Formats: sequence, C-alpha cells, structure tokens
Amino acid sequence: MQTLSKNAPMPVVRRLPKYHRNLKELLEEGITKISSKDLSERMGLTASQIRQDLNYFGGFGQQGYGYNIEDLIKVIEDILSINNKYNCIIIGAGNLGKAISNYILNLDGNAKVLAMFDVDAGKTNKIFNDINIYNMSELKDYLKKNEIDIAILAVPKSSGVEVAKDVINNGIKSIWNFSTADIAVGNDIVIENMAINESFYTLTYLISENKK
Amino acid sequence: MQTLSKNAPMPVVRRLPKYHRNLKELLEEGITKISSKDLSERMGLTASQIRQDLNYFGGFGQQGYGYNIEDLIKVIEDILSINNKYNCIIIGAGNLGKAISNYILNLDGNAKVLAMFDVDAGKTNKIFNDINIYNMSELKDYLKKNEIDIAILAVPKSSGVEVAKDVINNGIKSIWNFSTADIAVGNDIVIENMAINESFYTLTYLISENKK
Repeated sequence: MQTLSKNAPMPVVRRLPKYHRNLKELLEEGITKISSKDLSERMGLTASQIRQDLNYFGGFGQQGYGYNIEDLIKVIEDILSINNKYNCIIIGAGNLGKAISNYILNLDGNAKVLAMFDVDAGKTNKIFNDINIYNMSELKDYLKKNEIDIAILAVPKSSGVEVAKDVINNGIKSIWNFSTADIAVGNDIVIENMAINESFYTLTYLISENKK
Repeated sequence: MQTLSKNAPMPVVRRLPKYHRNLKELLEEGITKISSKDLSERMGLTASQIRQDLNYFGGFGQQGYGYNIEDLIKVIEDILSINNKYNCIIIGAGNLGKAISNYILNLDGNAKVLAMFDVDAGKTNKIFNDINIYNMSELKDYLKKNEIDIAILAVPKSSGVEVAKDVINNGIKSIWNFSTADIAVGNDIVIENMAINESFYTLTYLISENKK
C-alpha cells in the first residue's frame, strides 16, 4: 500500500492516533472491514472527511466494500512510527514529571522512561516508578553514556528555554515540551509542545459558544 | 469590530491562544501595529495563513498599515472568553491533579481551582496549594452548594467515563478531560480532551520524518 505521509497536513496527522484507537477497538470486536459512513458515525467525523484523511495515506477504500481495518492499522502505525522503541528522560521530577512517567507506563507503545532529572536536591537520589531521579548536574555525563531519543520537559515555564538548550547541547534531537515555554529550535531538532494553554482556551471558547 | 467566530474551524480557534500570546508580547515591547508579514515571521506561520485566520474574526488589517495589536487582542480575548471567571474542581488528587492545579495557578487567566476530590482516603482531608481535597463521596453535596463551571478529570483512563457521568449527573456542564478515556457527552455538555496520546504520536511522526 502506497503511503503519502509527506503531503499530509499536520491536522490530519494529529487525527491519526484517534483513527488508530478506533480501528484497534473494531478489530478487537471482531470487525475486519468498515465503510467510511460507519467509521464516521463511530468517530464523530463526516464520511467525506474520513475518505479525505485516509486518502493522504494511501488507504483507499474499495467501492461497496469499505476499508480493510488491519491494513489501515498497519499503515497508520507505520506513519506514526508507533512500533519503534523510544528511550526517554524526563527533566523535572515534580508532580508534572511524575504524572508524565505514570502516563508513559500506561501508553500503548514502546516508550520507556530511563531516568528523571531535577535541580532540587530534595527530589533527587530517589526512585519513582523504578526510575532513578538524578541531579541536573549529572545530565551531561548521563547523556554521554546512554542513547536517549526523547527529552521530556516537565519544568516551569521560566526554565524551559534554558533546559531545552541544555539537552540539545548534550545531543538530544527530540523534545516533548510540557513547560509552556516557547522554545525555538534549529531545523535538525524536533519539538512537540503539549499545548495545555491552547486546550484550556479552546474549552473556554466552547463554553461561550455553548451559552449562545 | 465584527466577529465571525461561529464560522471559524476549530484548527483556527486552537491557534488563537498563540496569536494572543505573541500579540501581548509585542504590546509589552511597545509595538502597537504589525504587518501580517512581520507577525508571520515571529510566529512561524505564512503571512497568507495569518490573514486568513484573522479574517475569520473580523480582524482585517489595513493595507500599508497592518493590524492594530490592541484591537486584535481585544477581539481574541472576547472570542476565547479569556477574561471570564471560571470556577473549577479537579477530580483526582494524584500527581496529575496536583500538576494541573499548579498549572492553573500560573495560568494567565481567571480560572481558579476551588476543590479537589479523590477516592483514596490517603489523599483526602488534606490541603494542596490552599485547596481542600475532599472524598468523592462528598462531591454531590459540594456541587449542590457551590457553583462550578468546569470539572477537570485527572483520573486513570479506567474511571474516566464513570467520573464524567458522575459530575454531569450533578450538574456540571463543562469538562476538561486529562484521563485519556473516550468520553461521549450530550449536546448540552462541553468537553475538551487534553490529547496527550495525539501529542506523543505527533512527536514520533515528526521524529520519523526528521530521519528521512
């Protein structure tokens, strides 16, 4: 099956995990093929939206037959690289860092948190979820000795930019940023911001629209 | 200034907080007007994307003058209802619930967490960030006596649906869901999901694209 991921706009990419989850559930229910109409009802999107989204990835449904669910799942997993392994570290071992480490433990994927770091001596030299919490002063040495794919920033906004610089200078190529700091990175670095503010203000927008 | 928020697609709405933040920063730097070109360079969007986005909300820049920053900020704040007050409760007083309460304390808005709830007796009858943590058995009574706008779900995926039902049955109209559970609600209820999975798989997609 041909994939055209290079041409997909980011909003389409961001919808893929939702497709993935729904298709996996269908497969578990013993369903092997589905029409765009049935999938649209399940997912709360329009059938034409679904056809358009899946066409980006070469998932062409057959007329009168629909989509082969197993094929679609494989294509989506391939595009999102869900089945790769990702070694992560978390910078910041406060409530947010710990919540993220819980989350990753439950994530249906191959991400693993190998270490956490904090500047606060009261939080370091401890173990949480079987993960060692090191002092930030040990970061450089740790990154020399361990191959880490993703640095997760769970630090206050005020230190986000500095911590990002720090991990990049020590060889990190991918950042998952929960810090709400605006972090500019070079073209060779990948950054994904967990947009908590955007989500909250989307909620307040929906609340005001709901009252109209 | 005329606003056309009703017609704006959600991706545009989700970009507005970023516009808001950048425009506020410009104002603090003493800048009062800006061209779509300058704004696009600052925000990493194309100038035509910016013109298109802002046109949805009646923010029409004048030829050769650009956008009046103060006006745009007012329109965006009005659309997102940023300046309203929001009384929130958090269900789940673990690391995630506590991280969210920290986040809301630092939020540049008028959201306030009035209470937290948990089923775990080891977490209740305590105070965190000056917020009382109650037992879930007290929720019904609490919601009768207090006017709450938003229930924030910081519970495990397994209890997300049940807790959502619980708060809705007790009069809550708006939910901010951090639980990763898929929660279906009626048309009179507003729900915004903090899409952690979507964000993680967007990151893994970007990582794989970066390696090509």
